[in-house]
Amino acid sequence: MSALDFTHILTETVDKLSQPESYRVLMHRHRDGEPLPSAKVLREVVELARAILFPGYYGNSTLDSRTLSYHIGVSVERLYGLLEKQIRAGLCFCKDCEEDERLFDGRVAASEAGLPVSADCGEALSEKAARTAAAFVARLPELRRVLATDVVAAYNGDPAATSYGEVICCYPAIRAISNYRIAHELLELDVPLIPRIITEMAHSETGIDIHPGAKIGSYFTIDHGTGVVIGATSIIGNNVKLYQGVTLGAKSFPLDSDGNPIKGIPRHPILEDEVIVYSNATILGRITIGRGATIGGNLWVTESVPPGGRIVQRKG
Amino acid sequence: MSALDFTHILTETVDKLSQPESYRVLMHRHRDGEPLPSAKVLREVVELARAILFPGYYGNSTLDSRTLSYHIGVSVERLYGLLEKQIRAGLCFCKDCEEDERLFDGRVAASEAGLPVSADCGEALSEKAARTAAAFVARLPELRRVLATDVVAAYNGDPAATSYGEVICCYPAIRAISNYRIAHELLELDVPLIPRIITEMAHSETGIDIHPGAKIGSYFTIDHGTGVVIGATSIIGNNVKLYQGVTLGAKSFPLDSDGNPIKGIPRHPILEDEVIVYSNATILGRITIGRGATIGGNLWVTESVPPGGRIVQRKG
Amino acid sequence: MSALDFTHILTETVDKLSQPESYRVLMHRHRDGEPLPSAKVLREVVELARAILFPGYYGNSTLDSRTLSYHIGVSVERLYGLLEKQIRAGLCFCKDCEEDERLFDGRVAASEAGLPVSADCGEALSEKAARTAAAFVARLPELRRVLATDVVAAYNGDPAATSYGEVICCYPAIRAISNYRIAHELLELDVPLIPRIITEMAHSETGIDIHPGAKIGSYFTIDHGTGVVIGATSIIGNNVKLYQGVTLGAKSFPLDSDGNPIKGIPRHPILEDEVIVYSNATILGRITIGRGATIGGNLWVTESVPPGGRIVQRKG
Amino acid sequence: MSALDFTHILTETVDKLSQPESYRVLMHRHRDGEPLPSAKVLREVVELARAILFPGYYGNSTLDSRTLSYHIGVSVERLYGLLEKQIRAGLCFCKDCEEDERLFDGRVAASEAGLPVSADCGEALSEKAARTAAAFVARLPELRRVLATDVVAAYNGDPAATSYGEVICCYPAIRAISNYRIAHELLELDVPLIPRIITEMAHSETGIDIHPGAKIGSYFTIDHGTGVVIGATSIIGNNVKLYQGVTLGAKSFPLDSDGNPIKGIPRHPILEDEVIVYSNATILGRITIGRGATIGGNLWVTESVPPGGRIVQRKG
Amino acid sequence: MSALDFTHILTETVDKLSQPESYRVLMHRHRDGEPLPSAKVLREVVELARAILFPGYYGNSTLDSRTLSYHIGVSVERLYGLLEKQIRAGLCFCKDCEEDERLFDGRVAASEAGLPVSADCGEALSEKAARTAAAFVARLPELRRVLATDVVAAYNGDPAATSYGEVICCYPAIRAISNYRIAHELLELDVPLIPRIITEMAHSETGIDIHPGAKIGSYFTIDHGTGVVIGATSIIGNNVKLYQGVTLGAKSFPLDSDGNPIKGIPRHPILEDEVIVYSNATILGRITIGRGATIGGNLWVTESVPPGGRIVQRKG
Amino acid sequence: MSALDFTHILTETVDKLSQPESYRVLMHRHRDGEPLPSAKVLREVVELARAILFPGYYGNSTLDSRTLSYHIGVSVERLYGLLEKQIRAGLCFCKDCEEDERLFDGRVAASEAGLPVSADCGEALSEKAARTAAAFVARLPELRRVLATDVVAAYNGDPAATSYGEVICCYPAIRAISNYRIAHELLELDVPLIPRIITEMAHSETGIDIHPGAKIGSYFTIDHGTGVVIGATSIIGNNVKLYQGVTLGAKSFPLDSDGNPIKGIPRHPILEDEVIVYSNATILGRITIGRGATIGGNLWVTESVPPGGRIVQRKG
Repeated sequence: MSALDFTHILTETVDKLSQPESYRVLMHRHRDGEPLPSAKVLREVVELARAILFPGYYGNSTLDSRTLSYHIGVSVERLYGLLEKQIRAGLCFCKDCEEDERLFDGRVAASEAGLPVSADCGEALSEKAARTAAAFVARLPELRRVLATDVVAAYNGDPAATSYGEVICCYPAIRAISNYRIAHELLELDVPLIPRIITEMAHSETGIDIHPGAKIGSYFTIDHGTGVVIGATSIIGNNVKLYQGVTLGAKSFPLDSDGNPIKGIPRHPILEDEVIVYSNATILGRITIGRGATIGGNLWVTESVPPGGRIVQRKG
Repeated sequence: MSALDFTHILTETVDKLSQPESYRVLMHRHRDGEPLPSAKVLREVVELARAILFPGYYGNSTLDSRTLSYHIGVSVERLYGLLEKQIRAGLCFCKDCEEDERLFDGRVAASEAGLPVSADCGEALSEKAARTAAAFVARLPELRRVLATDVVAAYNGDPAATSYGEVICCYPAIRAISNYRIAHELLELDVPLIPRIITEMAHSETGIDIHPGAKIGSYFTIDHGTGVVIGATSIIGNNVKLYQGVTLGAKSFPLDSDGNPIKGIPRHPILEDEVIVYSNATILGRITIGRGATIGGNLWVTESVPPGGRIVQRKG
Repeated sequence: MSALDFTHILTETVDKLSQPESYRVLMHRHRDGEPLPSAKVLREVVELARAILFPGYYGNSTLDSRTLSYHIGVSVERLYGLLEKQIRAGLCFCKDCEEDERLFDGRVAASEAGLPVSADCGEALSEKAARTAAAFVARLPELRRVLATDVVAAYNGDPAATSYGEVICCYPAIRAISNYRIAHELLELDVPLIPRIITEMAHSETGIDIHPGAKIGSYFTIDHGTGVVIGATSIIGNNVKLYQGVTLGAKSFPLDSDGNPIKGIPRHPILEDEVIVYSNATILGRITIGRGATIGGNLWVTESVPPGGRIVQRKG
Repeated sequence: MSALDFTHILTETVDKLSQPESYRVLMHRHRDGEPLPSAKVLREVVELARAILFPGYYGNSTLDSRTLSYHIGVSVERLYGLLEKQIRAGLCFCKDCEEDERLFDGRVAASEAGLPVSADCGEALSEKAARTAAAFVARLPELRRVLATDVVAAYNGDPAATSYGEVICCYPAIRAISNYRIAHELLELDVPLIPRIITEMAHSETGIDIHPGAKIGSYFTIDHGTGVVIGATSIIGNNVKLYQGVTLGAKSFPLDSDGNPIKGIPRHPILEDEVIVYSNATILGRITIGRGATIGGNLWVTESVPPGGRIVQRKG
Repeated sequence: MSALDFTHILTETVDKLSQPESYRVLMHRHRDGEPLPSAKVLREVVELARAILFPGYYGNSTLDSRTLSYHIGVSVERLYGLLEKQIRAGLCFCKDCEEDERLFDGRVAASEAGLPVSADCGEALSEKAARTAAAFVARLPELRRVLATDVVAAYNGDPAATSYGEVICCYPAIRAISNYRIAHELLELDVPLIPRIITEMAHSETGIDIHPGAKIGSYFTIDHGTGVVIGATSIIGNNVKLYQGVTLGAKSFPLDSDGNPIKGIPRHPILEDEVIVYSNATILGRITIGRGATIGGNLWVTESVPPGGRIVQRKG
Repeated sequence: MSALDFTHILTETVDKLSQPESYRVLMHRHRDGEPLPSAKVLREVVELARAILFPGYYGNSTLDSRTLSYHIGVSVERLYGLLEKQIRAGLCFCKDCEEDERLFDGRVAASEAGLPVSADCGEALSEKAARTAAAFVARLPELRRVLATDVVAAYNGDPAATSYGEVICCYPAIRAISNYRIAHELLELDVPLIPRIITEMAHSETGIDIHPGAKIGSYFTIDHGTGVVIGATSIIGNNVKLYQGVTLGAKSFPLDSDGNPIKGIPRHPILEDEVIVYSNATILGRITIGRGATIGGNLWVTESVPPGGRIVQRKG
């Protein structure tokens, strides 16, 4: 193939890919040079949160109790700085997305040149981002308190665990639950997009997919964990334990008059305190698994289970 | 332990590990200094493809419609340059592998010194690699068109999705399907090894294992996705949706007269348009799930299902 | 929000997070500046082991048989150097953890100032770390021999596999089994913490969770693999094959008089030679699956299966 | 030394270093989190400018005339984006500095708490930064035209030069003159601080110290260059050549009534067209070296030289 | 050239380079795996020292007076940790070097096998390293006090300087003097090798070569600086200013009875307070330039100058 | 400034910079995607050469005499691989440059489209590059032998030197002379461009500018070194010592009939064995400084000096 031939293919392909009709759905239009939330930066935010919440385990310095406040101070300040910018990017992003959709749906003129450029990715959003990041910082002590209960639960629940330290360093459940708890706090503070990015990071690393919208009590643990799915409107009490492959899912979802799914309706299970669900069980719909109930492995559960109930497999 | 003792262990171990009989199966002999395909470079190739296909979402520059063609031009040219070298490496690699096998099977003399060194990792392979990389580049606009349908399907199918942007940034299915579609194009162009490396990257990140050989229509989506397996000869129509843990597998495979599996026989399911398969269902063998059929979760399906059919779990 | 307001939130949060009662469970107290085992360094250790065990596939140099010993020599020496330091860190870590627990359980005075600082993260541990790392190095040739059988098994068991090279480069099972075999050797040498970190790395990358304590014979393979769990006291013979989602788990575990699980009791299955277990099957408890038996997919098995037995699904 | 002893030294030292009277002169107070201009980012700005001005020599892509505009487009856009942020940082920085001085001089109350926090590192500075960066971009074609004359002059003036390419790749004079010409444009656009950072980068790499305020004509070259100093108010015509160690300096500078040097007075030499100055010559004060004059090496020149003049060393 | 030919050249060359007689002078024998002092780590030590001494100018965080102590605390602790290890490496290094020399000089048997391996790179050196690093840390407040005077001197002495901030960020003299003052403190604490590495870093970056052994008062400044050399036994008072290319050197040095230079004899000039030396002047030998004297540029001075003296060039 | 305004400036500037008449002199046209020699890669080549020549000082592994050959083997093989590609790039580069010049001079048609694309950056150049890199490798033992004499000379010549190790680690002269000796070998092997890049690296780091064409005997040393210039046709005997700022330059150079300098004529000084030249002396033209002569500092020497001669400064 001659260089000339390739240049021809190249320029022709670039021309096609630069046509508005080609990139309509898939292009992100940045406002005023605002960047997108960055997975790389959010990864650092999560690392900083871990270094703060589990001092001595993450981060590479040698702490003692005198110098602990220096390290926590620097980490908290840096976390605030990064998070504030990410939240601002998330807030801007979501404004853009709405318009993209309107454009794509044909509700506004397709002509790109006519797109009104709103200027409000500005002072108000910055102020909101700063307040939100500060509010998250203020919740860190409570976050640490709850995560400590999860560590204890994982240690007590696994005969193979040799120390809290091993649990914190090695157990994927701790990683997934930490990201979930961080993401859930951010979602509670009305931060868009970023909570989902943070739980998907943990999903990728651990195979555990917890939607940031779920509500989960203390002393929560997941053994092994690959394949676990916890849907957006799930509610989980205290002292609950799940095994690998467990799904807390939606059975089906109602459509609106246009045939689109109605968003925000409670559609995932409620697990009360001290429930255990064994591996690969699937629990679907807004049902309640009562306090202290046990769900056997590989089961498909679509009706509520009373407190203390115990449902098991028939023989294979 | 004295330094002398360690030196002794070290040199003895190195000697053992340098014996040909030790490394026969496990060593790769490079021809003429040809490198192997590099996972790191292929990762960059995939990143570039994403930056081209989803402009504004990947890559870190602020685009507008005037400068879009600059960015796409540079990305396409760089993608071509990297891919051409990787394809060449893949083509050389496979020639070597054949010989490794012959050696290991004892079909040729074990003596390594006698290995004939072929010289044809040369001009012809370079020309083939260049043509193939250019052909891939020419298919990018069509790739973008199909991926846009997958984004729309993921958005429409998930009540929790808030925008196309969230789907593109966060959803593991989009990552897995993008890698699959890129890999499938390369496999169609007879590129060895590299397609599998690209789908395994997505498998590692998402837990979704789509063989590059599968054929998949438009508006395809996978919810949550961890544990999904789609085998090499699967055929999937348009508007199909899978949930986590679904397997499209082979029931068994015929052996040849030497007891080795016969390669290349159709052995995975066909899913026609608008099929839905719920979580952890397993569909095995060259059966057909008819248009619009629904397969319930946790099922084990080894026989065809007629169009519009609906098979569900018995109660747990 | 004024800068002053933020400073107030920041300093107040830092103060809370620096209180001993806040970080009791979650803080790691380093002795004498001893670092923790580092996931990043252990990743390099595993990369080095792969470069040694599969020469030419990992690492980026072009080998020939004359220069092979140079490369193996340098890699082995570096692996030894890194591993020795990591083992030492692991040995120190575990001493600390014990005390953390005693403190947390209230068995020792909570006052942190009164914590007796033991000085024995010193010479003796260094000597032990050096001997252990050298013992690991001496086992590398045997490790390579066994891994070669796993490569052959993966190739023979998959009709889609085109060469040993493709198996080594792409198959997640090889990655998970390599990490397991490395980790198992280290556990056999009484190395704490690090074996689990190494198998969790592979768990994160592949979704395959093999506890380093399991005993696994040669010619072992796992197809696809996401969701596989192999518990700490499992015993697996030669020529065994598992598919994705298979669990070898514990049924339940006895508690001691304080209600804590008794550690170290055999509680996972034994799979004899030539067993096949299909996808998503769950095998629980100290039962035996006899030589040559086949376990069908999605099954829940809690009783032993005789040699040659074949248990399958009832129709979906 | 016990850990306790060290903690004592550490905390005591940190306390001392955190006292305002300790850091008064040496601390930079950032306004509203504004960063300082970054040497690392400015290094990238200069690299981008080189990639634009000398296409094909810097940057790592293979250009042809069709794809040239893609590359230049992306580089120019990125240069603009980085430079705009750096200029903004520079503008903020300088406002802070003034106050630091007033504080230090005792002209304002030393009490740090009372420092009025101005809010004007805001919209106006951003607008100014954007306009300035765009104005710089618009001057790039002219910058390239002048730098081409410097390359030709270096090639023609050195019998050891083998091609323009060698001059561009290797000659420190080209590096120093490029940085100077970039910095001079920025200074002309009233950018503070950054021009000096850019010329000091070249000073560090080449030993050639050209103040960005100097005015230098076309076809300018410096041979070897280490030790050359060209002061802030120097004026150099076309076709001038300097050798290593040449100083164009100030003889002395008048003080104001407070004994401080009066800033901004012309105090460095004027070199008219076609002047040659040999190695280690020192030319001081606002004197004029006339057109075509030659100054011998190691000389100390403090009086004007007429056009065509030739002053040389007495014998050593 | 065939691969075989190259392998032959390679192995032959490696064999030659591995012969003890080839590497005798040039090889460093590490004791017990002790690393060498690392230029890269020492660069970080110097960066940390700058971040501590000039808060807000180096390092990339946004400081305010409340959070200043967090940042200084973390930086000081990290500096201590790195420096302690570097000093230990330096102490071990020097013991080795002595032996290398004895070997090379033939004072001990050339046979390498017979080299007695001392074991004393151990506890005692560690203790010494820790004490020394802590002593350095304790001197940081005084170091900052003196460096502030140098910043003021540079600002006052240069009509082109616009703020203290510009001086701190841009002036090579501040970089060279900072490194010198850090290195001088370490030399006073009997740290071997490392002080010289630190001043050579600044020499490389700035062209200013100050031996760490020199003694220099406060309010010291150097203009431009390239080519300045200040010898090991120089003594410089307060308020001294040097220009580029100034040498404070040794005239000649006495030899011992073996013809080797006698080390440690005062052999460089003394400059009393308020001396100015103009560019490229050379002052040689243990002479005294009296208080307030001025030395003109390009001069060669080998005899003392009385206080207030003023020596200048004869006309060029 | 509106986004629209900037887009206009951007596209207009890019158009101007993409015009052939704008980039004629300054653009490098790569043949067939051939890369340029890379300063970054050559830096690694030099680092590898240092790790080979001074084992234990550069590179970060702990060597002992048993494992030395492993390390040297790996380093030599990697050096060969990198250098071979760089030499090939250098050979291609120079062919292009010739054409650039012809184009620029107007000797060929300015039309870029008509440029004949030669195809000979191919097999023959690759073979030449491989042979040349191998020849360089074969000279490494001799290079080490000579560099050892330079280390001894630097140690013996400096009363402040405390060990050979300090000289190797810290002295800029060793760095500059190493690069020169490597570059000189490559120039002797007719490698274009790369030798100059390598000596300019050292020039930038040390301020010592030795042209790779100079011929320099053994036991050569330079004290301090900043500002030293050694021209392309200089010849230096054994046991010669230079101080900082010394120039061995050309007095003037004859022009050909077109007024261009005639290249390749001997025009720099000859220094016979045991010559010493003190700081800032300038020696110009093809003169001879006889065996054992001493040249005083700051002198300007344009006539030969007899053996044993001693010329000094008149009093300042």
